[in-house]
Amino acid sequence: MREFEQRKVERDKIEKILEAGRWAPSAKNRQPWKFIVIENKNTIRKIAECTIYKFVADVPLLIAVFLDKSEMVDRTKDVQAIGACIQNMLLAAHSLGLGSCWIGEILRRKEDVNRILDVPDDLELMAVIAIGYPVKKKRTSKRKSLSEIAYREKFGIPWR
Amino acid sequence: MREFEQRKVERDKIEKILEAGRWAPSAKNRQPWKFIVIENKNTIRKIAECTIYKFVADVPLLIAVFLDKSEMVDRTKDVQAIGACIQNMLLAAHSLGLGSCWIGEILRRKEDVNRILDVPDDLELMAVIAIGYPVKKKRTSKRKSLSEIAYREKFGIPWR
Repeated sequence: MREFEQRKVERDKIEKILEAGRWAPSAKNRQPWKFIVIENKNTIRKIAECTIYKFVADVPLLIAVFLDKSEMVDRTKDVQAIGACIQNMLLAAHSLGLGSCWIGEILRRKEDVNRILDVPDDLELMAVIAIGYPVKKKRTSKRKSLSEIAYREKFGIPWR
Repeated sequence: MREFEQRKVERDKIEKILEAGRWAPSAKNRQPWKFIVIENKNTIRKIAECTIYKFVADVPLLIAVFLDKSEMVDRTKDVQAIGACIQNMLLAAHSLGLGSCWIGEILRRKEDVNRILDVPDDLELMAVIAIGYPVKKKRTSKRKSLSEIAYREKFGIPWR
């Protein structure tokens, strides 16, 4: 979702979101993630300039998520772990009454984001998560059916 | 966790786990995942031969998760989405009273797993998830503290 109230996110809620990310599983439990919590209006505006999604400029809270390349085991497994970590944070935000938007498009400008946040090169931007209280509104989303994506015992035998 | 009861996982629980995976977010909502649900003892034994984790041979349920390369947008984002999808399934399993183990080590033998499951080359094995009723036992796990992984506003300023 992309429409947030101006209302700040309480510190204890931010803490719970980070905690959910912290407990994600990872290859060899290396926990290759680093987080930067951004509430400063100026910084948020600069980050927003790195994406085509203009709504980012008005979001009360961003969490930038990085892959710490000094903790890598295997890129595929580590990037999966980052995805698990982000998903934990999105689910935690939802359970706290918050809305969120997982922004991947900004990776096109990941070097600029690192510069804005004083981040060294061994941390690679993986996503920026926008978080805040959602403007109330009916929202919908679609997914493929299980019969299109799940198989029974072997490839080609539909799950149902 | 790696110690499972022999008891089968009920079909409606398998369905709920797949549903949780199905609803994960992904780049451009391309949903680049495919699942194979494996309960056949012979197939499970063959899959177990592809990993050093011998406990896999006795697990009642495996879900093999693949990246569908025909649905790719960007490998980093798609692999993150797979991680989010797997994490949704692990959390769903936990909420249903089940235990699970995310097996990545088997990727060393991903071509063999594809062969066992009749999977075409455009699906790349991302993980095998072992699921079942957990043998009751105290289990622990460790994580880095938030002060080691989270920063405030810029890199280098600890979150707390």
